[in-house]
Amino acid sequence: MIAGILESALYVDDLDAAEAFYGGILGLTKIAAQANRHIFFKAGSGVLLIFNPEETAIPAPSGALPVPPHGAKGAGHLCFTLEGDDFAALRARLEEHAVPVEADFRWPNGARSVYFRDPAGNSLECAEKRLWNL
Amino acid sequence: MIAGILESALYVDDLDAAEAFYGGILGLTKIAAQANRHIFFKAGSGVLLIFNPEETAIPAPSGALPVPPHGAKGAGHLCFTLEGDDFAALRARLEEHAVPVEADFRWPNGARSVYFRDPAGNSLECAEKRLWNL
Repeated sequence: MIAGILESALYVDDLDAAEAFYGGILGLTKIAAQANRHIFFKAGSGVLLIFNPEETAIPAPSGALPVPPHGAKGAGHLCFTLEGDDFAALRARLEEHAVPVEADFRWPNGARSVYFRDPAGNSLECAEKRLWNL
Repeated sequence: MIAGILESALYVDDLDAAEAFYGGILGLTKIAAQANRHIFFKAGSGVLLIFNPEETAIPAPSGALPVPPHGAKGAGHLCFTLEGDDFAALRARLEEHAVPVEADFRWPNGARSVYFRDPAGNSLECAEKRLWNL
């Protein structure tokens, strides 16, 4: 029944910093934004939703589309797909922008993962798709 | 550089309830689990990671793979892809298991979204892929 994951969400305390990070450093394409509430990026065939939880926790006003409230605090996690040849480019980009690499290792099946943090402290990972036998 | 989203994470306080919900009601296939720490499901070409934040916030022990700590509290959000014909099946499945539908509407571009909660209170959405022009 469920065909896949269309949107994945992370929460941040500073949407401008998130835009500079996800758009400027990681190179994702912004596809929507609402001041102080959210900024959305295209990531391959999916969408990365970046929310300000202080705003998304507020129920939708009457007359608006009835989007239910949500909002998390603390370090979330998300893993992007990266092909093997792009790990050097990723590490160079992170170094250029003084983003520390927190871990860089291979899983038992040989797939490589690089971990770093977004400005809000979310744990981001870039991994080879072969990490999972999907 | 980034090819897509490989893994999306949600946090729960009861992994057994999450397994019954995501595996039993939503019909996702479990691909990994570690008692009291996590349960992972295949969702199309991606992976849904369900974590107990009390455990993932603990740094990896020395000698283990250096997976960085993370862990969020509060209602997260994730949107699954559902094709139009499957909305009736989804609603029947939710009703059968007494899971309330919190919202069911069409966005301005006509794409349908159905919202409901997992047992931990995360806001789940099933939407038609045409919601986004990817």
